[in-house]
Amino acid sequence: MSNPKAIIVTIGDEILIGQITDTNSQWLAQNLFNEGFTVTKMISIGDNPAEVSSILEYTKNKFDLVIFTGGLGPTNDDKTKLVLTHWFNSELLLNQDVLDDIKQMVYRRTGNTILNQRNQDQALVPKCCEVLRNQVGTAPGMVFNRIENNTVYISLPGVPFEMKWLYENHVRSFLQQNFEITPQTYDLFYVMGISESALAHRLEEWENRLPDDWKPAYLPSAGLIKLRIFRPRPLTEQYNQMISELIVLLGENFVAKNEESVQDALTKILMENNLSIGTAESCTGGNLAKTFTTKSGAGNYFKGSVVAYSNDVKMNILGVKPETLKHFGAVSRETAEQMAQGLARQLECEIAIATTGVAGPTGGTESKPVGTVWISIYVKGQLFSEKFQFSTLRDVNIERSTNTAIYLTYKYLLNFIKQ
Amino acid sequence: MSNPKAIIVTIGDEILIGQITDTNSQWLAQNLFNEGFTVTKMISIGDNPAEVSSILEYTKNKFDLVIFTGGLGPTNDDKTKLVLTHWFNSELLLNQDVLDDIKQMVYRRTGNTILNQRNQDQALVPKCCEVLRNQVGTAPGMVFNRIENNTVYISLPGVPFEMKWLYENHVRSFLQQNFEITPQTYDLFYVMGISESALAHRLEEWENRLPDDWKPAYLPSAGLIKLRIFRPRPLTEQYNQMISELIVLLGENFVAKNEESVQDALTKILMENNLSIGTAESCTGGNLAKTFTTKSGAGNYFKGSVVAYSNDVKMNILGVKPETLKHFGAVSRETAEQMAQGLARQLECEIAIATTGVAGPTGGTESKPVGTVWISIYVKGQLFSEKFQFSTLRDVNIERSTNTAIYLTYKYLLNFIKQ
Repeated sequence: MSNPKAIIVTIGDEILIGQITDTNSQWLAQNLFNEGFTVTKMISIGDNPAEVSSILEYTKNKFDLVIFTGGLGPTNDDKTKLVLTHWFNSELLLNQDVLDDIKQMVYRRTGNTILNQRNQDQALVPKCCEVLRNQVGTAPGMVFNRIENNTVYISLPGVPFEMKWLYENHVRSFLQQNFEITPQTYDLFYVMGISESALAHRLEEWENRLPDDWKPAYLPSAGLIKLRIFRPRPLTEQYNQMISELIVLLGENFVAKNEESVQDALTKILMENNLSIGTAESCTGGNLAKTFTTKSGAGNYFKGSVVAYSNDVKMNILGVKPETLKHFGAVSRETAEQMAQGLARQLECEIAIATTGVAGPTGGTESKPVGTVWISIYVKGQLFSEKFQFSTLRDVNIERSTNTAIYLTYKYLLNFIKQ
Repeated sequence: MSNPKAIIVTIGDEILIGQITDTNSQWLAQNLFNEGFTVTKMISIGDNPAEVSSILEYTKNKFDLVIFTGGLGPTNDDKTKLVLTHWFNSELLLNQDVLDDIKQMVYRRTGNTILNQRNQDQALVPKCCEVLRNQVGTAPGMVFNRIENNTVYISLPGVPFEMKWLYENHVRSFLQQNFEITPQTYDLFYVMGISESALAHRLEEWENRLPDDWKPAYLPSAGLIKLRIFRPRPLTEQYNQMISELIVLLGENFVAKNEESVQDALTKILMENNLSIGTAESCTGGNLAKTFTTKSGAGNYFKGSVVAYSNDVKMNILGVKPETLKHFGAVSRETAEQMAQGLARQLECEIAIATTGVAGPTGGTESKPVGTVWISIYVKGQLFSEKFQFSTLRDVNIERSTNTAIYLTYKYLLNFIKQ
């Protein structure tokens, strides 16, 4: 049996003029994939009743599931609910449960016990829908379960945390109860230190022997390639065999498998070996620290960071010697290593990562052009340092420095522990 | 004359399974809007020749401009170029310029002078297209300029920095030469400390007097509402009058106008007054530093940061007193203020922002539940501190703490300077 077919539709003029990045589609796509749906399309349209109606027409009986986000706010520019009510030939009715939820929400947020008209109107819902009560915002979700056609329509607020809350507390269980779905997954291989075309070349003969369903996809990002292969259900001996061959072919370019990120692989090693880590950041400017602290439980292994953007901070807090800065400059192996050592000493952590480089667009010289980056990893008294030449673009340099620093730490730490 | 109509199409299975967030669409939408196009739709589809063909059929003569990104890589899963060649009844020819570009690129990246077959194949382009040479990657861009119909099709690589480079170096000037377009813009008002519905209520009478084209859009995000109004061209006296009224209505909730972010408004004040700033971060974990250092030129006012994730770091580097941590806890006004003072002392900066809170999902207590955050701002010897109760979600708490810290700093600094 093939997967039910889904489409994600995000609504909002702010998306079409590029004022915001639509992150709802990615989040929903990942969850729908895991549930067992095949998302074949994502569409973004404006707060425009005619466009919403045309999507309703286009999708009916063509998709099994349509998820809308956006256009449910209390202000005049939001029109999704009215269009849905009209299209399903329904009418808006006051829902007392929703009104109670809104009252509580407004009271918690503002201390007011009286609702203004706009908040009251958010308790009006189409008679024909199932209401998904929202405990983190004022707009309820709505499910139109195969009314007048075979398609299920779900409408959720556009605010990401409200959408996620409604999905996790209502939508997921609804989908499991109303569709024949089986969870699905893929295997993801992290590969480093090889170009996409060289990797494809190396894997060519192996790839030719794979059944079509298993053809790998290559996803290059800053300094790393992710190789994705859909995992058959149930797992077969043949699949396991091909994967073993793949690992051999990847050789030392293989970094990790099925980690949400290489950082997760690193975190696992830190936790298993009861090691603490900290960062001394110049060109990454706090991005490494942010990457660690985004994860819940970071306090168990992440001690902290010194973002040493000025030379004063490099000297006064990290103990980089003035003569080092003078002779070798801020972007040098020597400075990077003293930053890492100084941080480990100051924060009393076993592992320290230091970055220093010319992020750009200004500050480059002939001998140290924009994109020159030194990364130094301190592991229990030992130092591992490498120089990189990334790009001419500031954001790319920050991202590649961050990713590369994490892969290097992972690689050196793994070797260190194996010794 | 109305704007030419554009659609953005991003191609890649990794988008549909939610493996990556599509950021290309937002970037292109913003640029196309600024150029003078109206983007009425964005679509994401898989690496599927039938889907690409169906988009080509759907869009022809219906849109003035179609921009594709993705599906141009050297590996087997990328198929966009073949579909385009076939659909335009064209054939693939080797382009010597492109081949030279690829040779140089591969040499710079790997030191190799010999191309593998896959890289050579990237120099094959459809005979009927105009080639956009790519100096930051191996896949060239392609323009199909009103061939057999009135629609212009442009195909760009999916890797964001390559796509951006091609747009900035080739696409923008092509669009300006081949379309009748006039740059357009909007006014954006940053509003704080009021809910979306209360703001809409306050502006209701004013909004009713606005012509339809000027109706504002409300974009709520963590702790802030952005109010967007399209600016008429040319500017009219009536518009300026309505905007003046708006500013009066917003009153003390008005934060800034037309800054890319409140942070830009803050940066402007720092630069104009020759002030330096640093951050002492617990719950924001480096995100504040990252927000500052993302901007080019940050070194002119941003000195650095101490991410004090552990209490040791709070005491040893920032000088928070052990008895403060013992009596009041890490999440308290007292700790926040000592963090800010300590940072200003250590980094010798005039302004210091400190954050300490329970980001969650664990670590909450009855008196300090998840989402409790103290923010303290040190401005030349004076301290301003506020307590917040954000949400139960870790990422929301980090984001709201970061944004709120920046707004507070902006607000206090503005008052401080006015004194």
